[in-house]
Parts: sequence; C-alpha cells; structure tokens
Amino acid sequence: MLVKDYKQDFPFLIHARQTDGRVYLDNAATTQKPRVVLDELLKFYETSNANVHRGVGSISCQATEWYEAARKQVADFINAPAASNIVFTRSATESLNWIAFGYAVPELQTGDEILISIAEHHSNLVPWQQVAQRTGATLIYVDVTPNGQFDLEDFRAKISPKTKIVSVQQVSNVLGNVNPIKKIGALTHRFHATLIVDGAQSVPHLPVDVQDLDADFLVFSGHKVYGPTGIGVLYGKPDQLARMQPTQFGGEMIDYVHREGAAFQPAPLKFEAGTPNVAGAIGLKAALIYLQKQGLDQLLAREQALMNRALTGLNRITGVEIYGSAHPEEHLGVIAFNLHGIHPHDAATGFDLEGIELRAGHHCAEPLMDDLGVAATLRMSLAFYNDNADIDRFLTAVQHVKEFFANGTSEAE
Amino acid sequence: MLVKDYKQDFPFLIHARQTDGRVYLDNAATTQKPRVVLDELLKFYETSNANVHRGVGSISCQATEWYEAARKQVADFINAPAASNIVFTRSATESLNWIAFGYAVPELQTGDEILISIAEHHSNLVPWQQVAQRTGATLIYVDVTPNGQFDLEDFRAKISPKTKIVSVQQVSNVLGNVNPIKKIGALTHRFHATLIVDGAQSVPHLPVDVQDLDADFLVFSGHKVYGPTGIGVLYGKPDQLARMQPTQFGGEMIDYVHREGAAFQPAPLKFEAGTPNVAGAIGLKAALIYLQKQGLDQLLAREQALMNRALTGLNRITGVEIYGSAHPEEHLGVIAFNLHGIHPHDAATGFDLEGIELRAGHHCAEPLMDDLGVAATLRMSLAFYNDNADIDRFLTAVQHVKEFFANGTSEAE
Repeated sequence: MLVKDYKQDFPFLIHARQTDGRVYLDNAATTQKPRVVLDELLKFYETSNANVHRGVGSISCQATEWYEAARKQVADFINAPAASNIVFTRSATESLNWIAFGYAVPELQTGDEILISIAEHHSNLVPWQQVAQRTGATLIYVDVTPNGQFDLEDFRAKISPKTKIVSVQQVSNVLGNVNPIKKIGALTHRFHATLIVDGAQSVPHLPVDVQDLDADFLVFSGHKVYGPTGIGVLYGKPDQLARMQPTQFGGEMIDYVHREGAAFQPAPLKFEAGTPNVAGAIGLKAALIYLQKQGLDQLLAREQALMNRALTGLNRITGVEIYGSAHPEEHLGVIAFNLHGIHPHDAATGFDLEGIELRAGHHCAEPLMDDLGVAATLRMSLAFYNDNADIDRFLTAVQHVKEFFANGTSEAE
Repeated sequence: MLVKDYKQDFPFLIHARQTDGRVYLDNAATTQKPRVVLDELLKFYETSNANVHRGVGSISCQATEWYEAARKQVADFINAPAASNIVFTRSATESLNWIAFGYAVPELQTGDEILISIAEHHSNLVPWQQVAQRTGATLIYVDVTPNGQFDLEDFRAKISPKTKIVSVQQVSNVLGNVNPIKKIGALTHRFHATLIVDGAQSVPHLPVDVQDLDADFLVFSGHKVYGPTGIGVLYGKPDQLARMQPTQFGGEMIDYVHREGAAFQPAPLKFEAGTPNVAGAIGLKAALIYLQKQGLDQLLAREQALMNRALTGLNRITGVEIYGSAHPEEHLGVIAFNLHGIHPHDAATGFDLEGIELRAGHHCAEPLMDDLGVAATLRMSLAFYNDNADIDRFLTAVQHVKEFFANGTSEAE
C-alpha cells in the first residue's frame, strides 16, 4: 500500500528531498501541488488567458469553456447534481461568509437559533456570532464529548423548532474526528432547518457525496485539496442558492443595470461579481482529476496506515499528550498533541530545527482550546504523499525535542 | 520608441506568434503575464508553499515573508505611505464591495448622498445602488459631456454638504478618458466627503500616486496589471481603514475568539479572513517589478504612440463611429467604436475570423451605453506589448469586416 512514491508527482516535495530533506507535516494548513496543477496553470496562462463570460473572441470563449469545465469537475467530485450548484469563491472562509450574510441574515430574526459545535474553525464560528448580532438570533454551541467528538446527545437536546441553521465541520481541523453528518442532517431537516457543512478538512481526505449527506450547503478550499491558492467552493442546493442573495455586486453577475437599479443573473453567476480567479479554478480542476486518477479510497487507506503508524509511535513515547480520540480512524490526517512541560511554541521551534514542518497554536479554534483546557497545541497533519520515513522522522524528532528540553538547554524558554 | 520587442517576455504572445498569429487587443478585459510572473508562481509553489501568518515552521515563515513583501511592493508601486495601507482582495470588484459595505453602509443614513459618474463600470455602480437601498442615502449620477468626459461643471453643481461619498474611475474602461481626480478630490474634501478611486483601468497604464491624488481609497485588479487572476488591491488611508469594518470573518483576521464574541486585528489583517491568495500576491509583485524595470513613463509613451496610430488609422476609414474624445491622449489604451450598419456582435465575429481578439458588448457600463445612445460597441484595447504590426492588422481587419458585411454575405445576420 505504501509502495508508490507519490512525492515524485510533487515538485515541492522533490525540491525538499533534493535540498534540506525537510518533512512537510502541515497539510491541514495547506497542501502541496502536483506537477499537473502547475502545468495546467502554465498552459492556461500561455495559451488561453482571457476574461470569461463576456467575449465573442476565440480566446475568451476558450477561457470560458475551461472555467466552466472546472465548475463541472468540482460538481462531479462531490457528486453535486449539476455544475450550476457550484459557486466559485476565494476560499472556504469566503464561502461560509457568503452563506452567513447572503442566506442567513435575510432569513433570520429574533428568537431564531443557530446551532454550531464548539469545535468549529473560526471561519465557521465568527461569521455566526456576527449573524446573531445582526439578526437578533441566538448562537448556541453543541458541546464535544470528553475526547473531543461531536456530542450527538447534546445536539438532540439543543435542536428545536427555533433552530434555523445548523453549521458543522465534517472533520475537525484540530482533532481529526469525522462528524456524523448524516445523523446531524436528518435531525436538522426534521426541524426544517438548513444544514451547512464545512468540508475544508474532509474533501481533501474522504470521498464526499453532497447528495448522500443531504447537505443544503457544503464548502471547501482549493488550496487544501492540492489546488492553487485563492479559489474556494460553495455548493448549494438549487432552492437554497435561489434564496441566497449576492453579497458582492458588479460585472458578470448582473442581467441588466439602469440608473435606477439592476437585475441579477440566476445562480451561480449572480454570486460571482467581477473577474473570477479563472486560473485558480482551472488549477483546482487539475488537482481533482489527479486525485480521482489515484483513487480516493486508495489515498484514504494510505493515509490511515500512516496515521496508524504515527499514533502508535506517539503512544509509545512517554510525556506525550494526544488530544481527541485514541483511535487512528478518528484522526483523519491530524494529530493535536503536546509534550509535557514544554510550551508548544518552544516545541515547534525544536521541530523546525529537526527539519519537521508542523504547527503550534490554537489552530483557529480558540473555543475548542478553552474546552480542552489548553492555550495551544502542536499539530502534525499528513497527506497521502507522506510516507513511512516521514512518520519515523517525525517520531524521532519528538524524542529529540523532548530530550532537548529535558536537558534544560532551551534558549526559547 | 517601438523598437523593443516586448512580446518576447510574454509566453502567451510568443505562443500566438508561433501558432495562429492572433492579435490580442482585449487588454482592458485582462492582460497577458510576463514570464517572470509565471516563473515566480512556480518558484513559490515549488520551494515555499505554506500557509501564512500562523506558523513557526521555516517554510511557513518564508511564505509569510513573500506574502508581506508583495504587500510592500504594491504600496511602493502606488506610493502608499506604508504596506499596512494595502489590503489584498480577490479583485477590484471585491475591493469596491468591501468599501461599500464595510465603510459606507455603517456611516451613511437617510439624507446623505453618494456621487458617482454615469460612466462607472458596474462594479463601481451596482454596489452603490445597494448601499443607497440599505441606508436610505441617495445615489446621484454626475453626467458626462457630449464626448463622454467627466462633467466637472455638473459635479460642482451636484456636490453639497449632503455628499458623503464620491466614487469615480480614474480612467474609463469604455472611452479611455482620464478623469481629473485631483480636482474631483479637492472639491470632495472641501465638503468633507470620502474620495474613492477605481484604478482598475489607470494603474495598468499610468504612474499612479495615491498621495498625490489624495485618494481616501483606491482599488485595482492584479489580472489587469499583468499579474495573476484572483488577486486585487484595496488601498486606504489609515483613518479610513480603521473606520472600515470587516465584511468577512474567520481565521487570520481575529485577535481572539471566545464563545461570546471576538476581537479583530488592526488593518490590514482584519479584512483578510481565511487563507489569502498567497501565490496571487506573489505573482502580482513580480508583475509590478517587471513594469518598474521597463519604466512606466516609457511604457505609457509607447502606448500613446500605438493609440495615435490606431486612432489616426480608424479616422481614415469611412463608416466608423468612434466614441469619446477625438484626441488620442484621451483614449488611454481603449477605443470604443462601431461600424455603421453592422451590429457590434456580428462585427466581433468578423474580427475573430480575422484573428483579432477584441470585445463587443456593453463593457459592464450599461448606463453609459444608454447615455451614448447605443446598446453595445466594439472595443479594442491595447497594452505596451502590442506593436505597429498589431495595429495595422487591426486596421486592415476593420476594412475587411466592413467590406464583408457591405457585400451582404454575412452569415451572422
């Protein structure tokens, strides 16, 4: 299963191998890009770069075809019924904000309730604080269980006819647990509320089927799924997209404009004001095709084997606190951990010196940190292109960092 | 002046030369990218791709340095006092929307007035219709003179103590005239109103100095200034940026987040929720450095020579209606025109067959079209990399298209 050397498809990883041998384990923050993505960006800029949707010229028409083919590819990837369900945004964060301000704000009022989990990334939390402030609705947090899982019992206790919005991550960017979206969705829809799924950490790792999940909205980021920066996805059911109002206005999204007012295109174009990130969409298409060619199930199995090795290894080292579940299958690509007595930022400096790129901080999930009773954690996050050697380097580094600080020679303290 | 072959710096133009010899004259819609921009994108993705502002790892710090250096470069390019005056957005359209909804909506109320010109691009028009609707303020249009120039007299008549916002393009994307921003700004500030400048069509052609213009805000697009798609710029004076509220919320832009609420970073970070288009910013930096190396004054002089040749040539052909000024210096890169008796979309098909990429339509400026008394026009728009041969090919194509339709052999009619 770990035979294939995926790194050879990734110029960044080849470069790292040929230079300082650095191990990249910060994949939940952003992923590296396969060569086919960079090739496609170049091919677009070198042969077909023009503005889209407006021209009669051959190149403009060609650029529009490429852009719309990217929309179709995204729809296929998450099994959306049609390309018109897909809106291109800058990022998952922008997608969530557009849903919050374009869909929720016009529909909510005092007395309504918004349910999110306490483990949400700030991008699926701060917008809802704002929506609550602006509409008079109440923001209610679903707790996590002692090991950090979405608490279905607490959710059942808190959902009610007042609930209008349920917005949850499919996979936690800190703990890596997979939330039971289908169960959450069934209950959400029984109360006629809208289900919004933050897929930023699931779409890069799991086959995601928006119809099977019955999500009203699902969002994810291009750069976390091996695509370029600056491109995000907003999936919505047709009815929801029709009800959702644009939050940005300008060219492309209008039907007509007079002095007195304007009329807008139907979705998805009504949301895409101005020139979109054409190259970004095209690069994302190439990334998704690459993933499909490798086989999503195969990539997932490989990641699970790597995660198993990492968790087993970490568990054997004393003085390591692992947050979340004890089971590898409940750590989709991510392990948040701390080393006893060592501040995570100091430890991260140690990992950096060991040539391991990982992360220390609150991971844009401060309320979850409060819940876990820590200010910050270390976080290693892997992708299918990592290999056993990377995991072993990481585990060795954990030992070294521990020993270094145990010897009291830290300059960082 | 026209000796240098700039096309050799642009892979798209080399490719066109080596294949179908197509002439790209749609530069007001989007521009081609010099090789240095594509090289920089590749270099970033191949050596330094990581998420920004959050990491302690070496690569993350490096990516942050690249990203912040891009912000500094943009500031230098428009002579902004500091990098912190620069906010990265997706596009000029997004920049204008953020100003409209983050700055104007919280400050305006019934009785206030917003002044824009009737020649604005939809991106600087439809947002203001929305602001007026939401705040009760009144949107007032400054007329254009018979040849399409900003009517300073009309502006003087309409500005008043009620005026809170004046938002104007520096250069028209249809007519190419350069608006007297300094005069407009002086009057705007005498009435203590805020001056917003849409620089989407000026920054690619003119040296723009935001301090000299005394603009409170100025916006432009990366892809129109030889940079990548998906990156835009919002310049603001410190006081204005401090008063402006974020319109998107999430990671990066927060100081802290609790269950009950959140506090935000100071500008510019408070506006940049989520992972930004890091590669886009880095590519934009490379584009701006390239332009500075060529010399902005020299590029402008070359464009003026090309424009002179184009206008003189067009004026010699009967049956051509040119919109806007008769003077080449009042056509910054753009000529909107029609051929008598030929619908511009039919004509555009003819130009396409002649291998000339230009544009037909309302150019996202329908109210100006109404004012000019036309539904649509043809538009040719040039860049410094065009040359005399391109202009001559264009002029020959005008003749051919005219003759083709005069002979009544159009299949498009």
